Amino acid sequence: MESGVSNLPPEAPKQVDAHPDLSPRWGPLSASARVRLDGLLSRIEGARQTLVGYPCNQAFDYSELLPLLSYSLNNVGDPFATSNYRLSTHDVERDVVRAFAELTGAKMDEVWGYVTGGGTEGNMYGLYLARELYPSGLVYYSEDTHYSVHKSLRVLGMRSIMIRSHEDGRIDEHDLFETLRIHRDVPAILFMNAGTTMKGAIDDVATVRSMLDDLRLADRYLHVDAALSGMILPFVPDAPAWDFSAGVDSLSVSGHKFIGSPMPSGVVLARRKNVERIARSIEYVGVLDTTLTGSRNALSPVFLWYALERMGISGLRAAVTRCLEVAEYAKQRLLAAGVAAFRGQHSVTVVFPRPSDEVVIRWQIAPFKDIGHLVVMPHVTTEVVDAFLRDYLEHPPTPGRASHRGARSIHPPALPVRALDGESDAEVLSPKVSER
Amino acid sequence: MESGVSNLPPEAPKQVDAHPDLSPRWGPLSASARVRLDGLLSRIEGARQTLVGYPCNQAFDYSELLPLLSYSLNNVGDPFATSNYRLSTHDVERDVVRAFAELTGAKMDEVWGYVTGGGTEGNMYGLYLARELYPSGLVYYSEDTHYSVHKSLRVLGMRSIMIRSHEDGRIDEHDLFETLRIHRDVPAILFMNAGTTMKGAIDDVATVRSMLDDLRLADRYLHVDAALSGMILPFVPDAPAWDFSAGVDSLSVSGHKFIGSPMPSGVVLARRKNVERIARSIEYVGVLDTTLTGSRNALSPVFLWYALERMGISGLRAAVTRCLEVAEYAKQRLLAAGVAAFRGQHSVTVVFPRPSDEVVIRWQIAPFKDIGHLVVMPHVTTEVVDAFLRDYLEHPPTPGRASHRGARSIHPPALPVRALDGESDAEVLSPKVSER
Repeated sequence: MESGVSNLPPEAPKQVDAHPDLSPRWGPLSASARVRLDGLLSRIEGARQTLVGYPCNQAFDYSELLPLLSYSLNNVGDPFATSNYRLSTHDVERDVVRAFAELTGAKMDEVWGYVTGGGTEGNMYGLYLARELYPSGLVYYSEDTHYSVHKSLRVLGMRSIMIRSHEDGRIDEHDLFETLRIHRDVPAILFMNAGTTMKGAIDDVATVRSMLDDLRLADRYLHVDAALSGMILPFVPDAPAWDFSAGVDSLSVSGHKFIGSPMPSGVVLARRKNVERIARSIEYVGVLDTTLTGSRNALSPVFLWYALERMGISGLRAAVTRCLEVAEYAKQRLLAAGVAAFRGQHSVTVVFPRPSDEVVIRWQIAPFKDIGHLVVMPHVTTEVVDAFLRDYLEHPPTPGRASHRGARSIHPPALPVRALDGESDAEVLSPKVSER
Repeated sequence: MESGVSNLPPEAPKQVDAHPDLSPRWGPLSASARVRLDGLLSRIEGARQTLVGYPCNQAFDYSELLPLLSYSLNNVGDPFATSNYRLSTHDVERDVVRAFAELTGAKMDEVWGYVTGGGTEGNMYGLYLARELYPSGLVYYSEDTHYSVHKSLRVLGMRSIMIRSHEDGRIDEHDLFETLRIHRDVPAILFMNAGTTMKGAIDDVATVRSMLDDLRLADRYLHVDAALSGMILPFVPDAPAWDFSAGVDSLSVSGHKFIGSPMPSGVVLARRKNVERIARSIEYVGVLDTTLTGSRNALSPVFLWYALERMGISGLRAAVTRCLEVAEYAKQRLLAAGVAAFRGQHSVTVVFPRPSDEVVIRWQIAPFKDIGHLVVMPHVTTEVVDAFLRDYLEHPPTPGRASHRGARSIHPPALPVRALDGESDAEVLSPKVSER
């Protein structure tokens, strides 16, 4: 990937005595605009106190990086090629890609990747690669797959079949097998989840691969949406098969979820040999045109690099362990209060019957049909869990009343405790985590 | 667009006494990482001094907005709907969309739009809409169209025909007419440019529309890539027909180009009735799923809003006038030195024979085949132009030697002065701008 257009030195050979006009000729901010800006900041500060419903870590500190905001940065093109535009951070981006590759069982000489604008782009990229390899391929994905995948499939014009899920959110292997079995004449493109959006369920890549082997489906492509759990599973001792070491072809991990960032980002990784098929040498920017987007955010790679530097592997492991413990604590508290709570294996997501509208709004819950969930990110303490729980119990969903989203009523709980509670983490021994 | 899911109050009705852990448990930055970070900053600071080859304004100051970088912001979903995730800036985004709509001749009740991650996304969105409206449509675009469009067409699986360009970069209306004429049985999707990447040429929407009328091609869609000139043409007195007032269906403007921003962004605008066809109500985020991406950068709308607030219309007009004057100055200086320089109508791009490799590298020039260009952004002063010119003349391209990119030799100049110089701006009266 580095051949062809990378024959330029990345640095300018000498400095020129130019004098660009770097101070903008801007007027002062008007009083009304300032009021607006202050209002925005205070609204956001308020909203941050109660964010428990989305997988967005709020505990980060990038203040050392703020000087970078003075530059018109742009990581246009392939991070592994040199661009003529030098206000870029491709070198840092390559390190981030390498770090994510290591965490996901990949050999760096076998995979390629780039920092995306978020999980959707990474998933779309994986599907795009799969389509280029197998234009007649059929995409299989579970009903618990994120809604953006339907959108990407439509954009890409790919044929697909939605497979049933188990109630815990994992893809139903029986339905998958039967569906694959009657489509052995077309290449199989598997879109799998390592952490579904609503229930944090992990599709087992090993099972799916042995199914494909069994059916002699040699023309296959496996992509994994590991938006959230891609930063969790590398740090648990007994993670199921889910990454490159399990034989997947591409995967997408979000940067703004477990790591946390003021703007969405992600990393997509894919087998190099597949990427080379779609690479085109584009002269204009002097780079290989392998990314899905053109101009790309060059701050995000530095933010991810910086967070990884300051956390290190041990810091990430500690954060993951803490979040799993707090999630288990939340589940146990909910169960103790008689609420049908559920938490999947290695998941920081705690599922419960859909809260009342006011609780949904106050705690920024992402409801889906008759369930809601709490996602324990590093900023979510047991105190926050307690406060949420008090509110959840004090303002119960009204039995029989349809929710504001038109979903069906949420009593009795649709998630039987027994069936859903069978897979909690074995390694979480102490549900009571009160250190903070 | 605001009906259906926008029935929630955007603010939490009451604050909850929760205590999230907002200080990250990060270790200190290692000494080696700090050296790396300092090196990155100093390399970027150096690169900024000589950036004349890309349309990225470097003169901006967003320091007042840096407190926003402490929050996990996300503008997931449609900006005109309410999301459950409240660390968002959808309200500011709506204002930015409205401001861009006003500047591009649109009535706000007839268009919809959002802040994108850059021009590629906006162009892809326009093409996606066109494809949904006319699945059998044929896309026509000139050979001077940005390379990312080929990529988007491939992703979208759209049939297309590349039309010849005039030497000044405008689409060749004769080739276009003849091509449309033999394809009157398929809907016509016109991808046009308001400011081509290399030569800043503006395709005339009025001419193209009258062609379509003439051929009775009623099934048509017009998209305009106005990445750079979308922020220039609203401020020149005699702009050709290019925007919604000229009947286009969608257009994409970049935010990081003329306005300037530390991260790429843009605004895509499209006729509301077309967008409504692809809207789907997605419950998970409580928003209408009309955008191409999922999680979206919520800082960019605030940056654009802030720059527009501080510049105002008069500031933007003054900046545009100044850039056009400096561009004309650059062209005149190059011509006076015997260089076959060219500048299109209302364009801040000055085209010249491809510089030597060392000049390409030093000044971050984006060469294409046998030409290069200078893009006069607000930070490019006449002093910078002079310094570039001295270097350009002191290190002339070697006649007969193929460039490092494998393009053919660049002497004699491939752009005859006469033919290309016929369309300079009438309103630029004083080529000598020495105020700075």
